[in-house]
Amino acid sequence: MAIIDLDTHTDERAASAPGITAAPRRSGRPRVVVVGAGFGGLSVARALARAEVDVLVLDRNNYHGFWPLLYQVATAGLEPESIAYPARAILRQYPRTNFRMAEVSGVDLERRLVHTSGQPIEYDYLVLAAGSANNYFGNEQLADQTFGMKDIDEAERLRSQVLLAFERASQEADPARRATLLTFVIVGGGPTGVELAGAFAELIRHVLRKDYPMLDVAQARVILVEAGDRVLASFPAKLQRAALRRLRAMGVEVRFGAAVQSVAGDTVAFKGGDALASSTVVWAAGVRGARLGDRLGAEMGRGARVKIAPTLNLPGRPEVFVIGDMAYLEGYKGSQAYPMVAPVAIQQGAQAARNILAQLADQPMRAFRYRDKGQMATIGRRAAVFDAFGVRLSGFLAWAGWLFVHLIELIGFRNRVVVLANWVYNYFTYDRGVRLITSDATRKQ
Amino acid sequence: MAIIDLDTHTDERAASAPGITAAPRRSGRPRVVVVGAGFGGLSVARALARAEVDVLVLDRNNYHGFWPLLYQVATAGLEPESIAYPARAILRQYPRTNFRMAEVSGVDLERRLVHTSGQPIEYDYLVLAAGSANNYFGNEQLADQTFGMKDIDEAERLRSQVLLAFERASQEADPARRATLLTFVIVGGGPTGVELAGAFAELIRHVLRKDYPMLDVAQARVILVEAGDRVLASFPAKLQRAALRRLRAMGVEVRFGAAVQSVAGDTVAFKGGDALASSTVVWAAGVRGARLGDRLGAEMGRGARVKIAPTLNLPGRPEVFVIGDMAYLEGYKGSQAYPMVAPVAIQQGAQAARNILAQLADQPMRAFRYRDKGQMATIGRRAAVFDAFGVRLSGFLAWAGWLFVHLIELIGFRNRVVVLANWVYNYFTYDRGVRLITSDATRKQ
Repeated sequence: MAIIDLDTHTDERAASAPGITAAPRRSGRPRVVVVGAGFGGLSVARALARAEVDVLVLDRNNYHGFWPLLYQVATAGLEPESIAYPARAILRQYPRTNFRMAEVSGVDLERRLVHTSGQPIEYDYLVLAAGSANNYFGNEQLADQTFGMKDIDEAERLRSQVLLAFERASQEADPARRATLLTFVIVGGGPTGVELAGAFAELIRHVLRKDYPMLDVAQARVILVEAGDRVLASFPAKLQRAALRRLRAMGVEVRFGAAVQSVAGDTVAFKGGDALASSTVVWAAGVRGARLGDRLGAEMGRGARVKIAPTLNLPGRPEVFVIGDMAYLEGYKGSQAYPMVAPVAIQQGAQAARNILAQLADQPMRAFRYRDKGQMATIGRRAAVFDAFGVRLSGFLAWAGWLFVHLIELIGFRNRVVVLANWVYNYFTYDRGVRLITSDATRKQ
Repeated sequence: MAIIDLDTHTDERAASAPGITAAPRRSGRPRVVVVGAGFGGLSVARALARAEVDVLVLDRNNYHGFWPLLYQVATAGLEPESIAYPARAILRQYPRTNFRMAEVSGVDLERRLVHTSGQPIEYDYLVLAAGSANNYFGNEQLADQTFGMKDIDEAERLRSQVLLAFERASQEADPARRATLLTFVIVGGGPTGVELAGAFAELIRHVLRKDYPMLDVAQARVILVEAGDRVLASFPAKLQRAALRRLRAMGVEVRFGAAVQSVAGDTVAFKGGDALASSTVVWAAGVRGARLGDRLGAEMGRGARVKIAPTLNLPGRPEVFVIGDMAYLEGYKGSQAYPMVAPVAIQQGAQAARNILAQLADQPMRAFRYRDKGQMATIGRRAAVFDAFGVRLSGFLAWAGWLFVHLIELIGFRNRVVVLANWVYNYFTYDRGVRLITSDATRKQ
């Protein structure tokens, strides 16, 4: 009974006939189905909150994840719960909006149906905002051999793995084996790789050093490997250099021109013949559009993203929109593709909603226009790079700006309080209270 | 190299010969091995902090769990991280105390060795404080068919299960199946069962009701089943009745004389022929001493607990102590066995430590004497029963006392702040921010 959730908030639906997907909608309102409760999907729901449409948001998780802070979960700085907020709690404030936890397996564009793990769901308008997945560039063996950083489960597994590596090293008599356990390789010099490397270096030098006095902390290595010749490629050159200096000052080894060929057991092999022994390899080298995009039969752009019209819909399908990380659209800084970042997803969500309302009002749709607010990345305590609102900063001021922007954007008052309490505590004590090893520690993905 | 951790806090140990369990201890101090980082084990470590002994604490987890608040994790009131504190962070304040994460598989009492997942560990004195396990009274099939409440992983799984049951019910057309999904059975009317039942009733009535407006919340049932004829059997009769009244006022169905025969699929069968359909059955009907006790070859008391001398050691083995939930000793309120509660474990830990120091000083050991501080249990917002410090209370004052005692006993400043922030937030908003479904949701134990 796919339409249970949508029609009304009273119990009458419980009495309706079961199992009828194509039943007439009693509300009489058009139905907008949004796939994904990330920044893009929530933006669509917010923009349609007062419109005369029924909105159903689907997500495979029951929460919205604030992924810009995911690296803090992996490095024991924040609890998983403080960067996630229940989707129903966010959406229930909108009167005609509903949520369902469901994995979307495909879309029938002709019959206007979304296929899920449960029953198929009809739509009048569809917005696909399913985000991104790790990109292994065809080498899918890497998925089993490396740790990912795409959701809360993965971040928690990485946290357990790093802590367990220290536990095992403290009981390991063989120096070579101990070195392998204490070598942490992060593949990819983008914001995720840089933030992770900095946070791991701090965790080791300020916290684990005290927890494991019997280990020589100089044995522990954090190695950031990047196939290109710079970190934070999307930032201005001056900030790239500042970030690199800072990482090296924190003890992170940064290797350029190092493209990973394979990871097998505890060995990372690079193209050209080099190798490293490490029991923890994190893959942060690339993202691609969510795999749902592959199944649309649409034309694809770089990074396995779905090519869309400037009005954000599939070409020739004005009722189907694709936004955010999943979507490929050129027009950023001239003719580049819009980057896979939250502000793009949020603004595209709002524009897709406006274009749905335009169609309902028989008005022409408008092309997407991006207001660039800039970008930022944090490297450690009092160190960040900030390139936003027309200002380019590095160091303490950049870090304060980063903290401010992330704190006000964090959804939910409770989460803000918990995150702030954690930050204040970590800042003044150099301690981290959440370094728990949970049961998932053995699986990588 | 089992002794790496123990001898010194400098790096010299890294240079010592590997793999020698019976190597002479360079420190020259006697070694006390403590199994378990619970209330009992930590109490031993604290009491030996300034003594001329080396202490090694072992635990299968890397954290100390504050189990009195575990039910809050299962009911989405607190993050797992806020009731757990890294064992190394607690123990590193003591100069000659070390920690190792290891599962203890047995003890060789003759050769004075503890067997672990890693190398065997020598001891001069041994304190076993491994706590308790679920007691299925011989019906081990129940372990696979019910949810447990013994550690953080189990509590998190239960949380995911309850939230997932609501998600599934909201998509379920069959009314009978929906009712099964929304029936939550808690077996056992002790403090754990009562606290869980009250907290689930609040979660459903105040939070999930708003999250799932399409579900008739009256369909959701929380059923507390108890084989005896009262709840909180260890409390005074007046407080038992107060707790029962309060539970029923909150909508919890309490059934007495209901002994579970079996749980199979979604059916709970009771002795006598009754049955209930429920997809979530929580086992809180009994605890027993940790299974490590079974492998000692010692005489056992009721509840699979190890019989000990009044001086807390194994009879005839002055160097081996067993304390807390694992230990069976009579003398409570006349001739009853000491209950399996934190204050007993804490006081026994201190006494075991004093008896070790007495032996080292060639002094006689002293028998354990218990200072009873009372007991308390919370039932919901502003409702608890409190029988401590000579005061018997129920209602708001009991709840305030409960909150105060638990907050000051919570280890770590950070945890206190996070827990308080959560409580204040929940109290004023009737909301709970941490109701996340994580990947473990499908397994029961």
